[in-house]
Amino acid sequence: MKLPAFKSALLCAAFLAVAHGPAHADVLIDNVEGLRIDEDGDLDRFTGLWLEDDGTIIEVLDKRDKRPERPDFLADMKGQIIVPGMIDAHLHVMGLGFGALTIDLSETGSLDEALALIAQFARENPGRPWILGRGWNQEKWGLGRFPTAQELDRAVSDRPVALERVDGHATWANSLALEAAGVTAETESPAGGRIERGADGVPSGVFVDAASSLIDKVVPEPRPLDRDVALQEAQRLLLSQGITAAADMGTTLADWQTFRRAGDTNQLRIRIMAYAAGIDAMEIIGGTGPTPWLYEDRLRLNGVKLYLDGALGSRGAWLKAPYSDDPGNSGLPLLSEAQLRNLMSRAAMENYQVAVHAIGDAANAEALSAIEELSESYRGDRRWRVEHAQIVSPEDIRRFGEHGIIASVQPVHQTSDRLMAEARLGPARLEGTYAWDALEEAGARLALGSDAPVESPNPFIGMAVAMTRVDGDGMPPGGWMPQERLSRMDAWRGFTSDAAFAGFAEGRFGRLVKGERADFIVIDRDISRARPEAIRETQVLETWVGGKQVYRREDR
Amino acid sequence: MKLPAFKSALLCAAFLAVAHGPAHADVLIDNVEGLRIDEDGDLDRFTGLWLEDDGTIIEVLDKRDKRPERPDFLADMKGQIIVPGMIDAHLHVMGLGFGALTIDLSETGSLDEALALIAQFARENPGRPWILGRGWNQEKWGLGRFPTAQELDRAVSDRPVALERVDGHATWANSLALEAAGVTAETESPAGGRIERGADGVPSGVFVDAASSLIDKVVPEPRPLDRDVALQEAQRLLLSQGITAAADMGTTLADWQTFRRAGDTNQLRIRIMAYAAGIDAMEIIGGTGPTPWLYEDRLRLNGVKLYLDGALGSRGAWLKAPYSDDPGNSGLPLLSEAQLRNLMSRAAMENYQVAVHAIGDAANAEALSAIEELSESYRGDRRWRVEHAQIVSPEDIRRFGEHGIIASVQPVHQTSDRLMAEARLGPARLEGTYAWDALEEAGARLALGSDAPVESPNPFIGMAVAMTRVDGDGMPPGGWMPQERLSRMDAWRGFTSDAAFAGFAEGRFGRLVKGERADFIVIDRDISRARPEAIRETQVLETWVGGKQVYRREDR
Repeated sequence: MKLPAFKSALLCAAFLAVAHGPAHADVLIDNVEGLRIDEDGDLDRFTGLWLEDDGTIIEVLDKRDKRPERPDFLADMKGQIIVPGMIDAHLHVMGLGFGALTIDLSETGSLDEALALIAQFARENPGRPWILGRGWNQEKWGLGRFPTAQELDRAVSDRPVALERVDGHATWANSLALEAAGVTAETESPAGGRIERGADGVPSGVFVDAASSLIDKVVPEPRPLDRDVALQEAQRLLLSQGITAAADMGTTLADWQTFRRAGDTNQLRIRIMAYAAGIDAMEIIGGTGPTPWLYEDRLRLNGVKLYLDGALGSRGAWLKAPYSDDPGNSGLPLLSEAQLRNLMSRAAMENYQVAVHAIGDAANAEALSAIEELSESYRGDRRWRVEHAQIVSPEDIRRFGEHGIIASVQPVHQTSDRLMAEARLGPARLEGTYAWDALEEAGARLALGSDAPVESPNPFIGMAVAMTRVDGDGMPPGGWMPQERLSRMDAWRGFTSDAAFAGFAEGRFGRLVKGERADFIVIDRDISRARPEAIRETQVLETWVGGKQVYRREDR
Repeated sequence: MKLPAFKSALLCAAFLAVAHGPAHADVLIDNVEGLRIDEDGDLDRFTGLWLEDDGTIIEVLDKRDKRPERPDFLADMKGQIIVPGMIDAHLHVMGLGFGALTIDLSETGSLDEALALIAQFARENPGRPWILGRGWNQEKWGLGRFPTAQELDRAVSDRPVALERVDGHATWANSLALEAAGVTAETESPAGGRIERGADGVPSGVFVDAASSLIDKVVPEPRPLDRDVALQEAQRLLLSQGITAAADMGTTLADWQTFRRAGDTNQLRIRIMAYAAGIDAMEIIGGTGPTPWLYEDRLRLNGVKLYLDGALGSRGAWLKAPYSDDPGNSGLPLLSEAQLRNLMSRAAMENYQVAVHAIGDAANAEALSAIEELSESYRGDRRWRVEHAQIVSPEDIRRFGEHGIIASVQPVHQTSDRLMAEARLGPARLEGTYAWDALEEAGARLALGSDAPVESPNPFIGMAVAMTRVDGDGMPPGGWMPQERLSRMDAWRGFTSDAAFAGFAEGRFGRLVKGERADFIVIDRDISRARPEAIRETQVLETWVGGKQVYRREDR
């Protein structure tokens, strides 16, 4: 297309004007006690942040540095401690949000206490068409029997209610839920399940195992508006914990559309690095490859999450040798050798990042083999991720040091799982289990996360566990396999810059350096010096994303 | 959340800074012979456009108006004629794009000519894994028999080829396509279809009716990259015809993701008002309701397209009385009364706009009844659309004047269909058929479109037909039912401001007024004065969207 000279000039000038961008305005966040980690992994202190009004850092300032002469906006932080926003390398954004929209009965000590909580939740959530929850335990209540639909009706009678038992093996429903499910005295228990019944044979309100599906199948799918509410809940929760960015592990199309709705209407406050829930979701979301960074670095589809095995608790993790507490069972792979390579290849071919869920030692060995093979065809900076990397044979650990593999681990799983892991694996197999220091020594980059809502998203608990391997009660004294503890700086990096790197976000956020977005939190203690048990108690006072305050503790 | 005074000030100031927006730069498009339609529907002339650098019109200037003193960018248009960009109220963006990526054999006069064209297309499209096309006709070629796979192999032997006959009732494939389909001498013809065979019983390359599916089913689904290429083709085609915005009628999820990929990477040049292909697509795309206008008014999901009946050609249009040329058949509705109202209600409930495809008089009457009923519940500015509104009983025409209904009609269908319509409907039923003036007199707002790729997207042909009701050969002399012609200004408005209004885009584009986006085209004649047969020949020299040139004729 040949243009006369004056037109070429016009088009070129127009382009420059766009590149020139918004009117410049200086923002100064001053009088802070700033803590960050420098490129060598050492602590660096600063006292101010000079920002563009789009939240990009112009300069990180120390006491002697010149401030902008007349900043357009000035925040005097009055000497408070600020650190980079925390980044969670593995959680489930929508699961966290939906979890916040259901009742948690796990702390209730009696039926009456549970009923009161349920009634209160229903009052506070008048718009929710079903009341859902989990965590009840009639043994803990000292009830000596299952609760009934009639009892639940006393708490909520205007809407159906369905509540999962603490172990997930039974559902307690009210009368409207039974009605919605069409369950009557004539309904037979399905294979593998049992409908609890009164003396008259009428279903009494509890459905055991496979019978739960009678109720579950009539619980309506969440509507888009429900999803929007759940996302807002998740964001509120994460920001209140000091998390400014997170990898969403297993983004469905509906999840993605929810993220985009929020982005399109300026309601996306956290930064989400998304990993699609399988290849089909990856392809329809991303199309020809990872999306660009959208909404000023708040959303990107990075790649795909693939499940290679299950979990340790359910003995679905794929082990090289049978479970110590179930000698006939070694778990099993969810994908064949060929399937795994085929799916990874389809993703890598279009430059998607691959994150493989691998918990058992056989799964980890197989994930590593697949990565090794694919690295021959797909070169360059791939950042292959192994999610969980919980049980790794000592001879496989060194393999994490090759091909730039990222071990994405969740410290709190170690404290939650330790007694179970001892039972499932036996003492001889524990070397290489939750072996964070060994993985790091081998050359893997560790990205730390919470796996919320499976565990609390609180990153300071995660950081404390990473440094100690003791739980909230200080157990076991001295830490479980303490040689696998991480240093303070490694744990901190794992929840900030290394979690960003694991999501191809370095240079955008994670370190509070010039050119990155100003994501930071105001906290109540100096985590560069506090003892781990104090780090665990860290309180987040304010959270800022892109130079704007998006959370502030209510009591302040 | 209570903020101390200095923080409130900061947040407020930050908001103002955003509202302040980009650095202001003046763009002047000057020395034009500008033509537009004013609010009273009269012609208005102007000589310059003063724009923001984001393409928003600051002022439309006439000769005496003051220009900005030192514009940052100046385009001297040397007295050329410019008019608002044309808007197509009903077409299929991706269909148009994919059509451009297949061969059209309808103009070929011999087998050899067709083979040469096919070979050339394959050479020019080395990246396409299958060569697809349509429009061949062995009768027109004087061949006296079907062509063969071996003959097609002479044109393309490195990739499979599948070509649809002009009537859509047969597929011609080459040897690689037969191989891909696994078709051999043993393959039996399916019910309702016939595999053409040589004397030896070996399939010869043509598959009639239902047998076509043997080939069709192995043609690969388009990949996201194919879709991106198709969208670029569609945009190129539309911009070259002077179309700067279009309603996409029947947007699938894959289409939408393609539009978003283009938007996310600054490759969306036309403006798309999308109507989802059914309720499920609507819900997953839009979620809680229509999307915001995205990418500086280049994309919005407005609502949903629903099919109430089929087409006249296939006698699928739903008539009140049987077809004149098929006395046992009245066509049929594709949705029951309850289904139509249910789907429309689900859309209207969430403020989506509803566009109902209705061709036959029974379908139009039923669409009107449904709109009348739903208007009681869903009040306000709904802009119910009836797509096509081709055959309307005279007693139903006045009903188009109520509830702000929009009749979305495609003028060129009238000239393409007229002989068929006469045969299908008989003389007594033609009143109310393509009755544009009567619809407008009744008070309906007419939005004009092309239905491309079914017809050419050229809006000047559409405008000329709307004004004359004669085809490109001037037939029939005086026009078909000439009382239903539209005035020049109504036809022009139908392809600009009324098409914008039909898509809730008034105030954003369509009229070249202050505050709207500067979408305009440079054309080679004054369509406010040219005779209709000259309007039909209008040449588009340049196309500008949002104040930026996005098309320029190659010979200039």
